[in-house]
Amino acid sequence: MELKIVRRLMKANDDWAQRIRQKLAEKNILCLNLISSPGSGKTSLLEQTIDRLREQYRILVLEGDIATTRDADRIQQHHVPAIQLLTEGSCHLDANLVHHALEEINLNSVDILFIENVGNLICPAEFDIGETAKVAVLSVPEGDDKVLKYPKLFRDASCVVLNKIDLLPYVNFHKEQVYADLHKLNPQIPVFEISCKTGQGIDSWITWLDKQIKNPQLAPRPKL
Amino acid sequence: MELKIVRRLMKANDDWAQRIRQKLAEKNILCLNLISSPGSGKTSLLEQTIDRLREQYRILVLEGDIATTRDADRIQQHHVPAIQLLTEGSCHLDANLVHHALEEINLNSVDILFIENVGNLICPAEFDIGETAKVAVLSVPEGDDKVLKYPKLFRDASCVVLNKIDLLPYVNFHKEQVYADLHKLNPQIPVFEISCKTGQGIDSWITWLDKQIKNPQLAPRPKL
Repeated sequence: MELKIVRRLMKANDDWAQRIRQKLAEKNILCLNLISSPGSGKTSLLEQTIDRLREQYRILVLEGDIATTRDADRIQQHHVPAIQLLTEGSCHLDANLVHHALEEINLNSVDILFIENVGNLICPAEFDIGETAKVAVLSVPEGDDKVLKYPKLFRDASCVVLNKIDLLPYVNFHKEQVYADLHKLNPQIPVFEISCKTGQGIDSWITWLDKQIKNPQLAPRPKL
Repeated sequence: MELKIVRRLMKANDDWAQRIRQKLAEKNILCLNLISSPGSGKTSLLEQTIDRLREQYRILVLEGDIATTRDADRIQQHHVPAIQLLTEGSCHLDANLVHHALEEINLNSVDILFIENVGNLICPAEFDIGETAKVAVLSVPEGDDKVLKYPKLFRDASCVVLNKIDLLPYVNFHKEQVYADLHKLNPQIPVFEISCKTGQGIDSWITWLDKQIKNPQLAPRPKL
């Protein structure tokens, strides 16, 4: 019986996700769903990205969190609109919550929508929220075994941002292990090695992003 | 209807947890439930702890993971028994899974049971698994806002291990912020600042642990 309920909930989620996806496609909006562990640097990545893109594009950010508005407050200081989605204890965003948030928005004034998911490598990878593509953010101090341990996210993501690359000299982290595990799951996936602290590598990420915004139909779709 | 099902599942979980708690109390076993983000260093902390305690105490480790046996393999190299609990995609351990694992074990040969939960700050804090106490592990590179963002874990934990303290010089991390947030939620909670890499601070953690093992009835109980 529980299994049936879970299936029904997932079906309802997928229906909402499809509605979101269709609406975003009609408006030619690129929507990226950022997923990572807590503290990998999703908000810092968005801050860096916004500062480089907000002159050319109209950006909207949805911030997922279980209890605070801290991340949306950080984003708004970079002069783009941000909406906090509070999951009230749930460990992931779902499409229903995202859909309701988007109903409040005039989507004609948006070119790119970033959705920062709740910090968690597991359930956010399970719930389609109508995104164009998933971006997996991984940070060096988390260790080089995360691709192996959380395969679904890294299989379904359209790119990986490897953040905090400036900490490489201070931790045991074998980059080649991450690349080997990643290429088994997702052979063509681009990886951007960056540091939000020093700015290293951000340009390549921005170039990739710019290409996706200009041709949103070209962005890889999540494998559902 | 979904809410009723969730309540029923939680009630069933709590019943299993109570059975586990009673069994462990009868055998005078201290059981610590280690909870953290992915990559905060729970397994490294256990490796360090085992190396220091295995001559005096009989240790058993249960390792939670969604997909791999990697962590149990690491623990077994330190010459103590370890059982891998695979959650098959679920983002937390539950008491039913733990109960079944313990049925395979002769608990007369155990003094301390460490349970490493799935790497996730949210749902593992919601599910009682019959532990004596919860240990929250937080690592410096995750950032100083985690107590604020994940209050349930830090409210219910009996101690905090602040790991990767050797990385303090290389990241923006205000320790005083963490202590301020923590003391609002959980005023008396002990905090152990450690580095599993350099060994710094491990002795204080071991001293605390030793005291809890000798008087398991003194270990703070989780606030259910």
